[in-house]
Amino acid sequence: MGRGIQFMRLISFEQDGVAGVGVMIGDDGFVDLATAAPELPATIREILASVEDWQDKIAAAVDGKAAGRRLADVTLLPVIPAPQATWCVALNYQTHKDETGLDRGQYPEIFLRMPVSIVGHGQALVRPREEMAKRYDFEGELAAIIGKPGRYISESEAFDYIAGYACYNEGSVRDYQSHNRQFGLGKTFEKSGSFGPWMMSADEFGDPYQQSIITRLNGEEKQNSSINLILTRIEGIIAYLSEGYTLQPGDVIVTGTPGSLPGTNKRMDPGDVCEIEITGLGTLSNPVVAAD
Amino acid sequence: MGRGIQFMRLISFEQDGVAGVGVMIGDDGFVDLATAAPELPATIREILASVEDWQDKIAAAVDGKAAGRRLADVTLLPVIPAPQATWCVALNYQTHKDETGLDRGQYPEIFLRMPVSIVGHGQALVRPREEMAKRYDFEGELAAIIGKPGRYISESEAFDYIAGYACYNEGSVRDYQSHNRQFGLGKTFEKSGSFGPWMMSADEFGDPYQQSIITRLNGEEKQNSSINLILTRIEGIIAYLSEGYTLQPGDVIVTGTPGSLPGTNKRMDPGDVCEIEITGLGTLSNPVVAAD
Repeated sequence: MGRGIQFMRLISFEQDGVAGVGVMIGDDGFVDLATAAPELPATIREILASVEDWQDKIAAAVDGKAAGRRLADVTLLPVIPAPQATWCVALNYQTHKDETGLDRGQYPEIFLRMPVSIVGHGQALVRPREEMAKRYDFEGELAAIIGKPGRYISESEAFDYIAGYACYNEGSVRDYQSHNRQFGLGKTFEKSGSFGPWMMSADEFGDPYQQSIITRLNGEEKQNSSINLILTRIEGIIAYLSEGYTLQPGDVIVTGTPGSLPGTNKRMDPGDVCEIEITGLGTLSNPVVAAD
Repeated sequence: MGRGIQFMRLISFEQDGVAGVGVMIGDDGFVDLATAAPELPATIREILASVEDWQDKIAAAVDGKAAGRRLADVTLLPVIPAPQATWCVALNYQTHKDETGLDRGQYPEIFLRMPVSIVGHGQALVRPREEMAKRYDFEGELAAIIGKPGRYISESEAFDYIAGYACYNEGSVRDYQSHNRQFGLGKTFEKSGSFGPWMMSADEFGDPYQQSIITRLNGEEKQNSSINLILTRIEGIIAYLSEGYTLQPGDVIVTGTPGSLPGTNKRMDPGDVCEIEITGLGTLSNPVVAAD
């Protein structure tokens, strides 16, 4: 992975109630854009929406700077804390279709999540009350973040609309998910999923199909799949969504989870730590706690 | 309907790119809160979230004032233009279940819509391109708007959490809705639905089960059902949603559509005008245009 002028990893963070955007330097520190580039907006979504040459501007602002802040001193937020839309794709790896026994048509099977269902890297995932839900599962996934507006986008142009990528834990409350044909609340319980640790710019991440999703629970490997095994490819999901509405900067597309490794399952319980690694991108880690 | 101190109808509007909140006076005019109560926030969602005695404050601000502005001079926005969540309920009247041939379980079958899919009273609904979708339908519904935060709300307390009500056209693109088990894009095409004309406060609207939903297309009655025929009642929907997350002021709950009257269907085409009336509340009217 290069560290050329435009390659970068951006975080959304909060400290003392103030939200900001940081540029990672190494693995533990970052430059705070509120001081390095105070003319830029205060969220990644607004930066993408209003600053066309955001990569050049940010690269110039942090050029040669040391990490003035440490990840350990701040609270990481979801990479995009309040997107216009978070679309997730169900049943998008054959291994996951096989383990669920469910089928889907030729079109991507998509549903929305609420922002309140998502926490940042290091924050606690909340397992619903035991008497309400018996089964709470991780789903390790690659998330793509849209960088510019687009409608009726062709598959061949789709990658031009991606600003960057992040890891996503599409945490799922199976009891609620199976109440009806629509997944409904089962896919959007409060603090049931996570998104982070950072957005890696699309140019730095490169070809997503060369990478893998690896999920570990308490250090034990539970998922390990090449992203190349995805069924509806990322460009197909973007083209499909753009038939329905104008994609906007900061829109999040969560591209689907592979099956569990043989003999394992996706269950999470209080006390567990769940790590979603996307090779070449980073690792999203969250402890699991019980709901009050 | 009374016009006592707390009874009111609030609109969200825009003029010359500036958004505001108005209080209806009669049927054609309103008082602009930006002048009558400049200390209040500029959106209904923020007013509900930050002003506990919003009804008293607004009533005092407009007391005795004449309508200084006219509806005809402004663009009406969706009642809540950017809610945290818009939950819709599928198959919540037996007559609609019967016409679809679909079944549901004991739990409310719920799904999310995106804000970009909704326009205000009088604005054009956009029928998707003919080559993409053959069938675009209205769905007349009652929307409830949450007024204060709540989790684990009991059915007996649920009405205390409702700030007011509005009419909703839960416009649906049937081709996309049937692509998969999840309704997906079919329920959230850009500008496919509408929400208005105003939020009537819960105290003014009174018991929703005493009222009816009436839909007319080009003046012809297409739906006419007592809201008392709803399957999962409004208090049950609120209790269910609050199991999953903390409801927030401005959250929108769209409570389901009845079946079409015998011999009719829900189809909308360019050139049509669709009216959703909730008796005792008002009428939401929108023309339909073809997508570019």
